[in-house]
Amino acid sequence: MKERIWTDIEILRKTAPLVHNITNFVVMNNTANALLACGGSPIMAHACEEVDEMIQICGATVINIGTLDATTVPAMEQALVAAKRLGKPAVLDPVGAGATTFRNEVLHRLLETAPPAFIRGNASEIMSLAGSNVVTKGVDSTESSLNSLAPARGLSQQYGCVVCVSGGVDLVVCGAQTAYLHNGSPMMEKVTGMGCTASAILGAFAAVVPDRFEAAVAATAFMGVCGEIAAERSAGPGTLQLNILDVFYTLSREQFLERVTIEIK
Amino acid sequence: MKERIWTDIEILRKTAPLVHNITNFVVMNNTANALLACGGSPIMAHACEEVDEMIQICGATVINIGTLDATTVPAMEQALVAAKRLGKPAVLDPVGAGATTFRNEVLHRLLETAPPAFIRGNASEIMSLAGSNVVTKGVDSTESSLNSLAPARGLSQQYGCVVCVSGGVDLVVCGAQTAYLHNGSPMMEKVTGMGCTASAILGAFAAVVPDRFEAAVAATAFMGVCGEIAAERSAGPGTLQLNILDVFYTLSREQFLERVTIEIK
Amino acid sequence: MKERIWTDIEILRKTAPLVHNITNFVVMNNTANALLACGGSPIMAHACEEVDEMIQICGATVINIGTLDATTVPAMEQALVAAKRLGKPAVLDPVGAGATTFRNEVLHRLLETAPPAFIRGNASEIMSLAGSNVVTKGVDSTESSLNSLAPARGLSQQYGCVVCVSGGVDLVVCGAQTAYLHNGSPMMEKVTGMGCTASAILGAFAAVVPDRFEAAVAATAFMGVCGEIAAERSAGPGTLQLNILDVFYTLSREQFLERVTIEIK
Repeated sequence: MKERIWTDIEILRKTAPLVHNITNFVVMNNTANALLACGGSPIMAHACEEVDEMIQICGATVINIGTLDATTVPAMEQALVAAKRLGKPAVLDPVGAGATTFRNEVLHRLLETAPPAFIRGNASEIMSLAGSNVVTKGVDSTESSLNSLAPARGLSQQYGCVVCVSGGVDLVVCGAQTAYLHNGSPMMEKVTGMGCTASAILGAFAAVVPDRFEAAVAATAFMGVCGEIAAERSAGPGTLQLNILDVFYTLSREQFLERVTIEIK
Repeated sequence: MKERIWTDIEILRKTAPLVHNITNFVVMNNTANALLACGGSPIMAHACEEVDEMIQICGATVINIGTLDATTVPAMEQALVAAKRLGKPAVLDPVGAGATTFRNEVLHRLLETAPPAFIRGNASEIMSLAGSNVVTKGVDSTESSLNSLAPARGLSQQYGCVVCVSGGVDLVVCGAQTAYLHNGSPMMEKVTGMGCTASAILGAFAAVVPDRFEAAVAATAFMGVCGEIAAERSAGPGTLQLNILDVFYTLSREQFLERVTIEIK
Repeated sequence: MKERIWTDIEILRKTAPLVHNITNFVVMNNTANALLACGGSPIMAHACEEVDEMIQICGATVINIGTLDATTVPAMEQALVAAKRLGKPAVLDPVGAGATTFRNEVLHRLLETAPPAFIRGNASEIMSLAGSNVVTKGVDSTESSLNSLAPARGLSQQYGCVVCVSGGVDLVVCGAQTAYLHNGSPMMEKVTGMGCTASAILGAFAAVVPDRFEAAVAATAFMGVCGEIAAERSAGPGTLQLNILDVFYTLSREQFLERVTIEIK
């Protein structure tokens, strides 16, 4: 699996897939830079007038509800519908799920209208989305990722999608199959939008790796290993934010294979 | 006072208060990262559908009019009203006050509808807000902070709020009481949104320090000392922007107490 | 020409012109920081209620359609009209021209309503704007800048504006006159919004250099030389993004004159 993931990383770097994003205002710059640094080509476009055409030319679309409002929600819905119709993989990042009634209603509508190929969130968000009785704290997780395994599996089965949970241990759940990934650094939680970056990178891998489970494991492994290396070089979360982009851009086969830790059960 | 402020910094780091923000598109990323790095937990949400619920779960709200428009102004008004009703401290950052009629009208309406607990701006903004006859230059200050003392005091008395003025010397004005803080670096003016960061951090301290004057002095001291240390490590404003986040995250008691300079009169 | 450009850089640093921007959500922070670091004073404001007043107090306006939508397009149109009426130079950055029908229609309307003093884009965008039959790839260029010379000249003549094309070789085209600039680094393409930064800096030079061709050559030379120096100091695109801001701020006469390469034909 590890060698295959390294090949996926090389394919991503060679093919430079276009990845469409409707994401939040906090992370747009990081997201675009992360996609460029890992080898993709980002497009950020939320006008309903052009969403369909954008998705047509792209390899994947990433929908992130972080700073949703009455203007962007219809574009998100339209993008998920267009992705489904055009057979393009879509990633949904349910930022802040459980924090407000509005977020919950919007997420429910998006999932019912056009379920995405992938959902990626932290444990609290995934548990909230799955209807677990979880106390959320804004957009940060209050739960260990391992506690979200059953809810993630439920979501995966209900919507026929791959569910990724970021945390101390990262999970990738596809039906009955689960990958546990052990890379990363606690300092990543102190950089805003690291999860959003993970979702965007998932979109890039989904655009070039046909097997969805493999695409999600590859994206999660790439993110975790790069974050781990970058954190070791960083005096704090400020420099980590940029060092991780450098590592996305420069990661070598040796660095990757030496560190990556994946268990599949 | 200095020891007490250090205790406040420790409380902030331990309690990780949720801080709600409706801020401008230029600084959203910095603001969120600054809140995370100093120990808070940021929420950026401007949809009217969820503002009330967000403020309910947060310890403070920060309203920054930098890139205001017809969509965001009603959400700002709603947030200030909700904060008042729910007894949560609100910070208003009047970016660009005096630059256009629109900004002046919006600021007047916000202040009259639901005066915030704190106002933080540069000298030009505070003087414009207080009705002084000041020539402003866009969003940058043309005035020394010391010239804004009387206008700041007037605002503080008129609206019953604490007024903070950033500049060569930082001022914190609460009725007849004034703190003068002498930390910081001129290079901070060359990083966009340093004032917005100061306002966000003020929100974080306001969420955990009950005494408003103390909260404002603590936030101003923390910002100034961290900026000063970060500037010494930076080759220019680009690296300063990230180094200050690292210092927010790593600042030690010794570093803080050695540098902080506060006069209260 | 090189000595004259250095003088222009010094004038920019001394006069700190206000530069108004309606730009995309991805790059707002970088753009504002780039303007501050090169000596300008940025204003980001898109509310129709204040656009005219903002342009009145500014030395130039920069319109960038990167994340255009039904809310921002009218403000862009209003800004170009106001700039024309008030005799302020305007820069149009046609991000993603050719990617969708919506972008093409909006660009056509903007150009017909109030042609700007400057257009700056990559080769694909300029060729698409000039009606060349070019296959675009999202917001990244698929063409060498040299292939866009004839289309750039056509645009310059049609709208009476200076056209700048960023690429391996940067072009500045004004009627029959062309400058070829050979600075820069391929790593700059891996940082999102480098082109947007170039457009913003063009706005700053346009605000202080009366001759439009000279202003565009100066801005392009400054950007290229700074990017080249910054790339040599950077381990990847993450650190490049900040190092370039430091170099904007610290560039010396010697560094500039030693590196800059301009041919005018």
